[in-house]
Amino acid sequence: MFIGGGFLKEIYLDNSATTRVYEQAAKEAFKVMTEIYGNPSSLHMKGVEAEKVMEEARRDIANALGANPDGLYFTSGGTEANNLAVIGGALAKKRRGNKVVVSAYEHDSVIKSAKQLESMGFSVTYLAPDKDGIITPQSVFDAVDEKTVLVSVMLVNNEIGAVNPIKELCAAAKRKNPEVVFHTDAVQAFCKIPFKAEKLGVDLVTITAHKIGGPKGVGALWIKKGARVLPNHFGGEQEKQLRPGTQATPLIAAFGKAVFLDSTSMPVRRKRMEELERYLKDSIAEVDGVVLNSKEGALPNIVNISVLGIRSEIMLHFLEKRNIYVSSGSACALGAKSHVLAAMGYDSARIDSAIRISFGRDTEKEDIDELVAAIKDAMSLLCK
Amino acid sequence: MFIGGGFLKEIYLDNSATTRVYEQAAKEAFKVMTEIYGNPSSLHMKGVEAEKVMEEARRDIANALGANPDGLYFTSGGTEANNLAVIGGALAKKRRGNKVVVSAYEHDSVIKSAKQLESMGFSVTYLAPDKDGIITPQSVFDAVDEKTVLVSVMLVNNEIGAVNPIKELCAAAKRKNPEVVFHTDAVQAFCKIPFKAEKLGVDLVTITAHKIGGPKGVGALWIKKGARVLPNHFGGEQEKQLRPGTQATPLIAAFGKAVFLDSTSMPVRRKRMEELERYLKDSIAEVDGVVLNSKEGALPNIVNISVLGIRSEIMLHFLEKRNIYVSSGSACALGAKSHVLAAMGYDSARIDSAIRISFGRDTEKEDIDELVAAIKDAMSLLCK
Repeated sequence: MFIGGGFLKEIYLDNSATTRVYEQAAKEAFKVMTEIYGNPSSLHMKGVEAEKVMEEARRDIANALGANPDGLYFTSGGTEANNLAVIGGALAKKRRGNKVVVSAYEHDSVIKSAKQLESMGFSVTYLAPDKDGIITPQSVFDAVDEKTVLVSVMLVNNEIGAVNPIKELCAAAKRKNPEVVFHTDAVQAFCKIPFKAEKLGVDLVTITAHKIGGPKGVGALWIKKGARVLPNHFGGEQEKQLRPGTQATPLIAAFGKAVFLDSTSMPVRRKRMEELERYLKDSIAEVDGVVLNSKEGALPNIVNISVLGIRSEIMLHFLEKRNIYVSSGSACALGAKSHVLAAMGYDSARIDSAIRISFGRDTEKEDIDELVAAIKDAMSLLCK
Repeated sequence: MFIGGGFLKEIYLDNSATTRVYEQAAKEAFKVMTEIYGNPSSLHMKGVEAEKVMEEARRDIANALGANPDGLYFTSGGTEANNLAVIGGALAKKRRGNKVVVSAYEHDSVIKSAKQLESMGFSVTYLAPDKDGIITPQSVFDAVDEKTVLVSVMLVNNEIGAVNPIKELCAAAKRKNPEVVFHTDAVQAFCKIPFKAEKLGVDLVTITAHKIGGPKGVGALWIKKGARVLPNHFGGEQEKQLRPGTQATPLIAAFGKAVFLDSTSMPVRRKRMEELERYLKDSIAEVDGVVLNSKEGALPNIVNISVLGIRSEIMLHFLEKRNIYVSSGSACALGAKSHVLAAMGYDSARIDSAIRISFGRDTEKEDIDELVAAIKDAMSLLCK
């Protein structure tokens, strides 16, 4: 779009939905597609060199995750990894019990996996967050009993950025029942807040590439030594038969590169994210009719607000006309009413007018100025 | 590797394991990663443009497959599509019966899915190929009964290249029981032999990108209108909830481009493959101790031979030293004894010495000269 002879800058503030791939990571994928194109299961050199690229990526990713590479299993993304963890983790333990505990504001891939378990005879407890948007150790302790086989609570919530005390939650669950398998969906946390999978005490961790500057179509489930998960695909010998199918080596190589870039730049970027968050919060604090849905202590990258009186979709399209891209919730839910904000106890007026602003490595203060100016314009134009 | 001052040419004759990605397809993936990087489920323009790229690819692929784009569901590859078809197809029909019929020489992703169904209480009939390596309509007709809910027979076998008369097999199955869901794994057939999914009469067709010059990590299941399949992943709204998870748009775009290139060049390439096949067969006909495992009428791209007295792995590594890459069977089975050749009724001596030579768009006659010379050398050096 031309404005005054130049391109209107694209202000992409939807980095929790997905991110632009690092150029170096995309180049890696290109190289693997056109040069290191062997099947990593092939026994000859073309296979061996592809396998080497894959194993290097596995090591780099595991290293950033604070986990052993042996325990990292590549999947097609976060959804598959969450399915594998929740359904596969519960089924592997089904002789010990038929109860599962998940937070009520998990991503759909966890919630729907839990529903699938319900259809198989499991009973599921959905934990509500407290007034700060956090799942508390006490609520986990209270929900777990001797029949509970699996608990799944996300590290960072994808809509409001709440950061859960996973180490404490896991400890509470295992104190009540040491046999419990603890899963955390770390898709929105990985390379955004520092944590080490092995130090959290958890058994299963989900990560994905496309939220951290890697490509869509690849993710991973980390499985702690000794924990067991049943596969949901059947076929060849790949990924120790837990996840058969020719591995997506170009994506895996790009994932590795993106993790390397995004994890090493995390400390510096995190400071910038905090500044941007502060700046946005200060800017909207002056605007009547705008309320903050994210709570103190949330991930700075995600700021969820409601512009009371303007429906989310209306606002989203108003901003889009100015090349500003935000979301009305999780992209996966395609505009359905947010179950996350509902779990937070917000009323309809607030839920229906919520927008999620999520920063990325390209975000500048000027982008926030543009956003806030646009929101003010929307309010004066649409709220009459 | 330097030989006489130059690089030794890489002779890649393992194109049934995987293929080099078309440069144009890889460029497409790069572009989507770095420019059209939106989440196709996002409601704003960055999402809409990503969705457009994805839907264009879906249309191009469906067009080449002779099928409606609405029925094409993207997966992470052939293994996932086969799992979805066999397990999801059988489970969707389980009220009508608990029997499944598959050929004994299917890819592991079908065989192991059938085994999984057995563990769920289904009974599975495994059909042996006839002396020509073909599954016959009569054997399908005989195996199907009123309790049969699904039949799965591959269009082209991945190890010996046998081309099955799928239209007749499907007709035979449905004549016996019109309620049967018929699935064909067309991974090795797509863009290699002309067929139209809708004209085969089948309900489910599996294809994958990496066998046709597209990237690893993406495939598709085509589902005929009216046929039903239960999902094996649970989550967001993507792919009409049959296959949730953020779509791998870079891979899907590259898949679309590869299909376009590979399908439009198929008629010309097919002639070349037939010439190469003839040339290889003529060349090895003169060599004592080499026997042909592929049968007349097989896909010209795949020639399976046994070099009696030399174990497959020994031969594979001997050839590898001359930069010639072939396989000892399916890459996915990692060197395990071929269940395909066993199903063909070959004895151990023949199975243990089998190698699969599979041509691709880069293969030249000179490559075959090199291969045959190397096989002769191996025989004189190793068969003493």
